[in-house]
Amino acid sequence: MNVPLELLHRFLEEDAPFGDSTSEAIVPGIWCTAAIFARKEGVIAGMEEAEALLSSLSLSVQSLVADGSLVRKETRIQEIHGPAEKILLAERTVLNILGRMSGIATRTRQLVDRVHAINPRCRVASTRKTAPGLRLLDKKAVVIGGGDSHRYSLSDMILIKDNHLSLVPLQEAITRAQAQSPYRLIEVEVTTPSMAEEAARMGVPIIMLDNLSVERVSETLDLLNRKGLRKGLIIEVSGGITEDNIDAYASLAIDVISLGSLTHSVTTLDLSLEILEKRPIPV
Amino acid sequence: MNVPLELLHRFLEEDAPFGDSTSEAIVPGIWCTAAIFARKEGVIAGMEEAEALLSSLSLSVQSLVADGSLVRKETRIQEIHGPAEKILLAERTVLNILGRMSGIATRTRQLVDRVHAINPRCRVASTRKTAPGLRLLDKKAVVIGGGDSHRYSLSDMILIKDNHLSLVPLQEAITRAQAQSPYRLIEVEVTTPSMAEEAARMGVPIIMLDNLSVERVSETLDLLNRKGLRKGLIIEVSGGITEDNIDAYASLAIDVISLGSLTHSVTTLDLSLEILEKRPIPV
Amino acid sequence: MNVPLELLHRFLEEDAPFGDSTSEAIVPGIWCTAAIFARKEGVIAGMEEAEALLSSLSLSVQSLVADGSLVRKETRIQEIHGPAEKILLAERTVLNILGRMSGIATRTRQLVDRVHAINPRCRVASTRKTAPGLRLLDKKAVVIGGGDSHRYSLSDMILIKDNHLSLVPLQEAITRAQAQSPYRLIEVEVTTPSMAEEAARMGVPIIMLDNLSVERVSETLDLLNRKGLRKGLIIEVSGGITEDNIDAYASLAIDVISLGSLTHSVTTLDLSLEILEKRPIPV
Amino acid sequence: MNVPLELLHRFLEEDAPFGDSTSEAIVPGIWCTAAIFARKEGVIAGMEEAEALLSSLSLSVQSLVADGSLVRKETRIQEIHGPAEKILLAERTVLNILGRMSGIATRTRQLVDRVHAINPRCRVASTRKTAPGLRLLDKKAVVIGGGDSHRYSLSDMILIKDNHLSLVPLQEAITRAQAQSPYRLIEVEVTTPSMAEEAARMGVPIIMLDNLSVERVSETLDLLNRKGLRKGLIIEVSGGITEDNIDAYASLAIDVISLGSLTHSVTTLDLSLEILEKRPIPV
Amino acid sequence: MNVPLELLHRFLEEDAPFGDSTSEAIVPGIWCTAAIFARKEGVIAGMEEAEALLSSLSLSVQSLVADGSLVRKETRIQEIHGPAEKILLAERTVLNILGRMSGIATRTRQLVDRVHAINPRCRVASTRKTAPGLRLLDKKAVVIGGGDSHRYSLSDMILIKDNHLSLVPLQEAITRAQAQSPYRLIEVEVTTPSMAEEAARMGVPIIMLDNLSVERVSETLDLLNRKGLRKGLIIEVSGGITEDNIDAYASLAIDVISLGSLTHSVTTLDLSLEILEKRPIPV
Amino acid sequence: MNVPLELLHRFLEEDAPFGDSTSEAIVPGIWCTAAIFARKEGVIAGMEEAEALLSSLSLSVQSLVADGSLVRKETRIQEIHGPAEKILLAERTVLNILGRMSGIATRTRQLVDRVHAINPRCRVASTRKTAPGLRLLDKKAVVIGGGDSHRYSLSDMILIKDNHLSLVPLQEAITRAQAQSPYRLIEVEVTTPSMAEEAARMGVPIIMLDNLSVERVSETLDLLNRKGLRKGLIIEVSGGITEDNIDAYASLAIDVISLGSLTHSVTTLDLSLEILEKRPIPV
Repeated sequence: MNVPLELLHRFLEEDAPFGDSTSEAIVPGIWCTAAIFARKEGVIAGMEEAEALLSSLSLSVQSLVADGSLVRKETRIQEIHGPAEKILLAERTVLNILGRMSGIATRTRQLVDRVHAINPRCRVASTRKTAPGLRLLDKKAVVIGGGDSHRYSLSDMILIKDNHLSLVPLQEAITRAQAQSPYRLIEVEVTTPSMAEEAARMGVPIIMLDNLSVERVSETLDLLNRKGLRKGLIIEVSGGITEDNIDAYASLAIDVISLGSLTHSVTTLDLSLEILEKRPIPV
Repeated sequence: MNVPLELLHRFLEEDAPFGDSTSEAIVPGIWCTAAIFARKEGVIAGMEEAEALLSSLSLSVQSLVADGSLVRKETRIQEIHGPAEKILLAERTVLNILGRMSGIATRTRQLVDRVHAINPRCRVASTRKTAPGLRLLDKKAVVIGGGDSHRYSLSDMILIKDNHLSLVPLQEAITRAQAQSPYRLIEVEVTTPSMAEEAARMGVPIIMLDNLSVERVSETLDLLNRKGLRKGLIIEVSGGITEDNIDAYASLAIDVISLGSLTHSVTTLDLSLEILEKRPIPV
Repeated sequence: MNVPLELLHRFLEEDAPFGDSTSEAIVPGIWCTAAIFARKEGVIAGMEEAEALLSSLSLSVQSLVADGSLVRKETRIQEIHGPAEKILLAERTVLNILGRMSGIATRTRQLVDRVHAINPRCRVASTRKTAPGLRLLDKKAVVIGGGDSHRYSLSDMILIKDNHLSLVPLQEAITRAQAQSPYRLIEVEVTTPSMAEEAARMGVPIIMLDNLSVERVSETLDLLNRKGLRKGLIIEVSGGITEDNIDAYASLAIDVISLGSLTHSVTTLDLSLEILEKRPIPV
Repeated sequence: MNVPLELLHRFLEEDAPFGDSTSEAIVPGIWCTAAIFARKEGVIAGMEEAEALLSSLSLSVQSLVADGSLVRKETRIQEIHGPAEKILLAERTVLNILGRMSGIATRTRQLVDRVHAINPRCRVASTRKTAPGLRLLDKKAVVIGGGDSHRYSLSDMILIKDNHLSLVPLQEAITRAQAQSPYRLIEVEVTTPSMAEEAARMGVPIIMLDNLSVERVSETLDLLNRKGLRKGLIIEVSGGITEDNIDAYASLAIDVISLGSLTHSVTTLDLSLEILEKRPIPV
Repeated sequence: MNVPLELLHRFLEEDAPFGDSTSEAIVPGIWCTAAIFARKEGVIAGMEEAEALLSSLSLSVQSLVADGSLVRKETRIQEIHGPAEKILLAERTVLNILGRMSGIATRTRQLVDRVHAINPRCRVASTRKTAPGLRLLDKKAVVIGGGDSHRYSLSDMILIKDNHLSLVPLQEAITRAQAQSPYRLIEVEVTTPSMAEEAARMGVPIIMLDNLSVERVSETLDLLNRKGLRKGLIIEVSGGITEDNIDAYASLAIDVISLGSLTHSVTTLDLSLEILEKRPIPV
Repeated sequence: MNVPLELLHRFLEEDAPFGDSTSEAIVPGIWCTAAIFARKEGVIAGMEEAEALLSSLSLSVQSLVADGSLVRKETRIQEIHGPAEKILLAERTVLNILGRMSGIATRTRQLVDRVHAINPRCRVASTRKTAPGLRLLDKKAVVIGGGDSHRYSLSDMILIKDNHLSLVPLQEAITRAQAQSPYRLIEVEVTTPSMAEEAARMGVPIIMLDNLSVERVSETLDLLNRKGLRKGLIIEVSGGITEDNIDAYASLAIDVISLGSLTHSVTTLDLSLEILEKRPIPV
């Protein structure tokens, strides 16, 4: 996924609408080598974006690990050479990008590993509950972490949710969705086993069991199996999944566990930039 | 703080680059009343932005609580009237804005309340560790939550950090900063009591004690007091502050506790939009 | 589909980077009523965009027909009231939007009608061969004309094309696509009946028969039927479809006929704006 | 004419708001050489834009023909080297730009050649009836095809049209235009020989005969000649010019034939991108 | 000339990337009436832009004078009603727009009046030497002041300058320009009477005498008259015109005096905003 | 201070929305060397921006002087190599940037030199009265000229002005400001000695004496000294400072003289671009 340079520049402008008062005052005329370190173990994401932004400032950048690498605490992940003034100008913007993306990738990887230990075919997916304006970066980080990006936006596919169903009955909603276009995958969010059965019977390929307990999910799977509707169907479980209950859900014969928290409640990965060497700027 | 409509529109375009496939298929021609509810107790922030975005889509909006209100679980915070297609188009964007901003405001308020219970004069401040592109919204939410926005960007004030000091010695750095402009407030990040003493002696008005233990902070305050340098000085404690140790820091005679986690690791406030009533769109 | 006002404003700026030299010289101070007329029979599209742009210039607008209306030659479709200077400033931009969108909608409707007369279940779809920068408007016009928008962009779904297959063998490509995400619908472009069989056997839900003659398509359908693979499969025929051969394709048991020409080679619908009444601008 | 890189990037983002799902799934890690071929004979336009866009993605590009070249069917026009993922990401955007621009250039060249065969001094001009947002590309393509760009926008020159004349009488309109600025060239659109005479008598340098039959144009030229007003005057014929009647108009002693259809109803030139060679991406 | 709202919003964001720290701290909750006053006599320009910007902030605005009005010192030109916080947020941006535009209009009017007193047919024109990014506002202000906007940009017309002539000889340059398009007005910048004669003889309609003394201009006019080339020709005098010598130039039989200083070296008109009344914000 | 390339590109687009009609007609196919010369003595500013813009057009640029250099009349400051068409396309945009920035830097340096000759510790500062949209360039030029940038925007610091004081009494305003955040430097604009005393007594670190005569300023300083409030206080004098009275103000024991005219009423530095050599473009 290609993040436009113009977006990265907007991030930089936000952090320095009128320059970097500190570095302009204190460190002009110094050339240095700096490095970005992971201060905690984690999965790195955002290296391409960091490189693109730093390079556009005429800084020289070497990435030492690739996106998706699980790195140990204190790993040096990127080296940067150039005027200290420019490196420090971009430092926080780059760390904010890398920290957020790596934080998402790290948590995604943890949950994926955990779910796969129990159920290797079950995916861990994100939702559209991303930070506003950061959908592309957030989804890219989920994918780097081994998760599923799910739909990117309202335009991608059809997902019939509770609010649609409070306006139009289930059968009618599915019929309208199916009449719309064969190029929109259809998913329905259901809250009872019988709704799941109805949707499956109408040929909906993906069913999201929303906010059902482990028992209710199990019951729904049984019903679908009994009715011969389970095969070829994607079952997504969503709503209220936490680290406390994810193992229980994962142990069921489901296809996807989705969690808004992957992107709406991110814990940044702790990273820092350090100056390694300095010398006067060559004239 | 006035968030530009163009930014809010970019958030919406991100979620619907080619429209809302679901609502266009399923709910055309329906007029409805919807409401946004807080699903958890929290401090609401983002009402102005939600209103501005929804109004620009020609939806009618009534805010039922003001930014900064602490609301109980299940509180109705905003009502919206208009075509279901438009309300559902904007639903997720609005919830993502409100959820993030309210999440920040809620956690800020919690920490502010906790700190003030111990030390009513000590402020809780955010840092520049925000989500990239969301600095304005993140800082606004901190302020709504009762926190201090600290500097907004690299342009605002001079903050001499470890990386500057690895390039230029402390005295020289402070001298250069003071020579720059009387209109840039100067803060220095120090890691030892003697650095704090040196900075204070040179007239630096704000000193950040970075990653010092409670004991080291206490020791530094003692030193400054003993040397007659404490008065008029702002002492900020930063780095490694968590919910486990914030009370201990707050009990010291410091002025500010700053936490990157206020904005870099946000837990969104759980909100949802529900359809309350529907009728055919008037022709 | 909501077209951002900022995009409409960019269209206007393009046509008047430094104002409208003619109207500023000749018609200041005149208030008038104008109307947009269809000069040819056609299906109107772009009314929402015209209204949004004109209203943002503080002009008063009444749309007399809805998007998707088939109108006869000389039908009055929109009335506008306000200063002549502003109406003439926006005239060409509005006509260019309406003309292109209505041209697309009109041709789409013609082909849809023709195909449906032969095969009521066969859809007519557009492709990604739109004018650059106008994807949203072009796709919206196709839908207004009764066509299928197909995928909107490279992000929406997976479509394995000849270039992918020249890099990775068919089975491997499908396997990789299926491993990617259950939330991306998969389509494969094939050029022989046996490729179609292979794709269908692997569970690909949509198969595009690319540049096959009517006979070859028929042969492919026979093969799929014989092998029991036709059911539930969407068959799209694409490449080289023209008004001369579309009937022959439509008479086959296919699901979709897609044509790049719907959007890459548009004949604008002839529209014009006329002044109906004038009076001095009220002070 | 320099097309801003930011505009080309907007075109790319439109086609891949969240990346290229197919290529990311199927062709990562492959380096390849690709080429763009003209599938039909035509005049190539858009090479500079294609190069600029591809280069900004760090792809290596060699243009094999220059803008304005008339190429035969199956001519290789551009070679591209780099990661398959990036080449396929940009493929459709580049082809849409080249296809539209080359389509315009090709049709322009055809009409120019045809007109010049009859009347070597008569120009073929475009109008402001371009695709919205594509004025710069459309006009550039017309010029590459040998046509005249006419005015670029409402700001360039003064063109008094029927709508102005329905608000202000001809003489008054011309007088106001002449009073405006000597730096705006003035053209008047007339519908009768006597209007042409009046405009010429007032010193208007360019007269557009709008929607006049060949006979009426001829009659107008006679009148102007008889009155000694033809010399130094530019006579443009516009409205209703098609391939069926353009020869007849060209045979008259006119200066310009303008056609909105050059840009409002474009037939794209058929182009395609093919993979020529592949190898693993060098590490 | 319609200034896009998005541009005005960029001006505002520049002055308040993170809000108005002062007004947010000090004047929340106060509703007031404010007025903008001219502190010096001058010609007002920018009223439309001020209104558009203030209105977009939901402030109520009444303009008391129209663009182009010559107002006396201490004239109240606009009244604004609304929250003090919003009025003070926009104050400086609005004053900077009005001050610059009115400064340009005022100086333009002074020079126009002076020139017209001597030579009522001689125009005063601006050049492309405007502040970067402010061309539209600067040119609009010149026109409001009674000046001529000359060409707006490099796209408008052909102006052959010294740098072109150092690359291509005069005759060749004019021939190429004339071959380009009848829709580009042609002007040539000359530095000697004989160049002027040559250009006039070739039919160039506008000749700029660049940096010639009053005597040399006079000599050139004589030569053109003697050769019968003066009639119908526009003679522009440019370069080195100041308030000290403008009268002398104006007394010659020339058509235009152009001055870069009208827009490149602007003296802002002194304006201020004052609070007239206040009351608590109605709830 | 890093000026975004996107902003520089907007400046260029403004001057050539549809290309450079003249150079495209007259100088295609010519490669040349050009140079920018200072036509007047002055302090150069804008070299980085000129380089960035020219380089982004693939032109080769050598800067011969650094930003901040005082150059003599006729100094060659930058050389450019490349196609004449591109150099002339960018010429005016580059000169407008350099001319404005150098004009600001030159005047700033003159005033700084003059003030320092009398009072070496007194600074010369700019205000927020910049050209709209050019704050970053204007402030950068002031700093290059040796001036003080003062606050960049409304977000930076708290400056309590007359309009705030007409809404809230002085003490209350200061109290509110102090309660806001320790990270906003506070300045108060006062109009009488007693207001200055009151502000100083409340601990305000910067006091602006607005529109006070030299005598009144002197009287205020005396009062502050007598009351023991002068030490550590920054005294800024503003309003009505001109070249006629600046020496008198400078001779007082003040810290800053600020002038809006540094940026609101700029005299551009006279610069020009000349072609030095030409040859055909290498194929």
